[in-house]
Amino acid sequence: MRLVVIGGVAAGLSAAARARRVNPSLDIVVLERGTHVSWAACGLPFYVSGRVKALEDLILHSPEEFERERNLRVRTRTEVTALQPTRRQVVLAGGERLGYDRLVIATGARPQRAIPGADLPEAFTLHTLEDGRRLRDYLEQRKPQRAAVIGAGYIGLEVADALAARGLVVTVLEAGPDVLGRQDRELTRQVAAHLEQHGVELRLNTPAQDIAREVVDGARAQLVVLAAGLRPNVELAAEAGVELGRTGAIRVNERMETNLAGVYTAGDCAETLHLVTGAPVYLPLGTTANKMGRVAGANAAGARERFPGIVGTQIVEVCGLAIGLTGLSVAQARKEGFDPAAVRITAEDRSRYLGTRPITVELVADRRSGRLLGGTVTGWRGVAGRVNVIASALTSGMRLEQFEQLDLAYTPPLAPVWDPLLVAARQLRKAIG
Amino acid sequence: MRLVVIGGVAAGLSAAARARRVNPSLDIVVLERGTHVSWAACGLPFYVSGRVKALEDLILHSPEEFERERNLRVRTRTEVTALQPTRRQVVLAGGERLGYDRLVIATGARPQRAIPGADLPEAFTLHTLEDGRRLRDYLEQRKPQRAAVIGAGYIGLEVADALAARGLVVTVLEAGPDVLGRQDRELTRQVAAHLEQHGVELRLNTPAQDIAREVVDGARAQLVVLAAGLRPNVELAAEAGVELGRTGAIRVNERMETNLAGVYTAGDCAETLHLVTGAPVYLPLGTTANKMGRVAGANAAGARERFPGIVGTQIVEVCGLAIGLTGLSVAQARKEGFDPAAVRITAEDRSRYLGTRPITVELVADRRSGRLLGGTVTGWRGVAGRVNVIASALTSGMRLEQFEQLDLAYTPPLAPVWDPLLVAARQLRKAIG
Repeated sequence: MRLVVIGGVAAGLSAAARARRVNPSLDIVVLERGTHVSWAACGLPFYVSGRVKALEDLILHSPEEFERERNLRVRTRTEVTALQPTRRQVVLAGGERLGYDRLVIATGARPQRAIPGADLPEAFTLHTLEDGRRLRDYLEQRKPQRAAVIGAGYIGLEVADALAARGLVVTVLEAGPDVLGRQDRELTRQVAAHLEQHGVELRLNTPAQDIAREVVDGARAQLVVLAAGLRPNVELAAEAGVELGRTGAIRVNERMETNLAGVYTAGDCAETLHLVTGAPVYLPLGTTANKMGRVAGANAAGARERFPGIVGTQIVEVCGLAIGLTGLSVAQARKEGFDPAAVRITAEDRSRYLGTRPITVELVADRRSGRLLGGTVTGWRGVAGRVNVIASALTSGMRLEQFEQLDLAYTPPLAPVWDPLLVAARQLRKAIG
Repeated sequence: MRLVVIGGVAAGLSAAARARRVNPSLDIVVLERGTHVSWAACGLPFYVSGRVKALEDLILHSPEEFERERNLRVRTRTEVTALQPTRRQVVLAGGERLGYDRLVIATGARPQRAIPGADLPEAFTLHTLEDGRRLRDYLEQRKPQRAAVIGAGYIGLEVADALAARGLVVTVLEAGPDVLGRQDRELTRQVAAHLEQHGVELRLNTPAQDIAREVVDGARAQLVVLAAGLRPNVELAAEAGVELGRTGAIRVNERMETNLAGVYTAGDCAETLHLVTGAPVYLPLGTTANKMGRVAGANAAGARERFPGIVGTQIVEVCGLAIGLTGLSVAQARKEGFDPAAVRITAEDRSRYLGTRPITVELVADRRSGRLLGGTVTGWRGVAGRVNVIASALTSGMRLEQFEQLDLAYTPPLAPVWDPLLVAARQLRKAIG
């Protein structure tokens, strides 16, 4: 009985490791196109900034460790060129065929690169270890002073932060009207103002035209980083008859099964369910990839687990400010057929007599049901925890009335007596009436 | 139509302020025995340590502000000596009688002082502004070097921290076997080890015998702080026929009504409902007092609001370590008739390549239902937020299976890809089987 896993980073290795736990006798083969498995893609911006000294610090485990400790066969630099589900085999570059009983597709995603000049030497993406090495080498050797970052998603913002920390003048170009894909003008304004304070210009509604012509600080950018979102790597799967969803990523149920028998998927190539909207969503993130991977691996090995979905939680730290969001913004909620109301408050983040920093909380709720739909939190301290409280409430479908009375932790150095979450909830309930 | 509020600190003033919002024409009188209203009792340890410079920094609002801005009559140094509910009046020291249509009893609590020597000049409590002034004056003028703190609840631990920060040798004497009243030996061991690292000795199962004889560091303590818990101020209410609960505090329903018509209660003199056990509990805390006060005030003024109860969340920061807890410990859960299982894990508090500190998470769940029952979190970063996620899950009665899949925020500087909460939940689910 053999399990083949295509992809050896977050989802793929989680799947393989979990399958091994569930079934000690399974023959497990992980096929990875790149040179490394199990490395921390999310750490790349911190390698670019220099906060992480060596690229090797981002490598969590070697293939040999997995072979020795988990009894997995891990083949790096091994590209799969075709799936043949009727024969239950995969075809490798070079022509080798490898049979499987169960297959996990964890082919990940790739950065959007559809812009003239994407192959110029000053153009970069930040998706692989090699990308990270190439970008930092360029920074250290060429010492560019003006950088453009294309895209104001979390990767774009982290890269802008990293480049600004190295002293570059940075402009972020965002094709849409908002940061972080949130459809939240007020959040966008706040992030833009914060970036500006740290010398980073944010240009909204500005699709990148041509890498050779991007202008930063009055002169041509010497460095352009493409961070305009990810596209799921679905071609291999689609050609073999694996069904895609409306999002363009692989369609999957809560068991991580595709439409083909014995074929599972997980991670950045797959869509998942949004628990607030009840609809499929494509939101490629490391945590979700790992969770999906575990469930795919467990089920491929004979267990029966489920991954219910996500509520769309994201957080990023940019120039010291933590920006967290979960669930839906007002605009997103309206599109989904809710009747949303929202309030946004700025409060002190702990007891005043100990010195405070501002923290901003927005909550969104449905007027009809009183149910919480989403929220954003920005500030210097306690942001992740507060976003997580909202995420937990969204998961259980909590109504504002209950949220407003949550028994949240209070001690003067860590939180004010009225937590900003509760103040926002109270005001929103009043607004809904 | 007159509302009389007895007590002008957290619960009483919240009640009065909220009643004013609900009913602009109500005659509202706040009677406060002490010299100040609206001051931050929770800030006293930080005044003792010197982190808060002036006692005045703890005073949030003056009586005049309330009179001017909220149209409340606030009478300080005004003691109520009797309630006459049949006549709907209160009797003040000096004999004045004041009629009411609605009454809110927010008489608070007082420190336990039943120990020989409690009146000695080196014996202190830390409950009023005057207590704070007297203790810091003593520290600055007498420069004591050896202090005993009686009680290892949150006030005792905060006072121990404050005194250690001033350079005193500190011993904490706790009559029971545990810190923070948690019935959790492992948590107690961890806190004891942490205190010891910071030069604070914790003696468990050691009831204080006599303030004149407490020995610290081989010699007589020059300073003894009594922090052995709070007793609700219920005598006035009880004498007037207000019913007490089994906890000894005033019995109250979710409308904050007592058994007497038109008489409400809130804050440290009242019990509340524990949402995990479904039973009344006495846990006097500032946040709860404020929440109860708001509901009592609203309802006394004619609204119809409810305070559902608490889940027992507490947090304290001691010598840099944040210690948070919510819900039930294993021992507490067992007493309540659950069949609890627990796991405790220690993990890194963010991505390893950015440098981490340990964070310890314990989760408790019921074997029969899989329902989460409680948890503790200790660490340096992200403790309050994680306790709050558990508190939110307890409030909605979340099961472990759902908790394990929560979509929690991940970004390398703020959280690891597998949040310690999720790791603990996963292991606990495995342990339950």
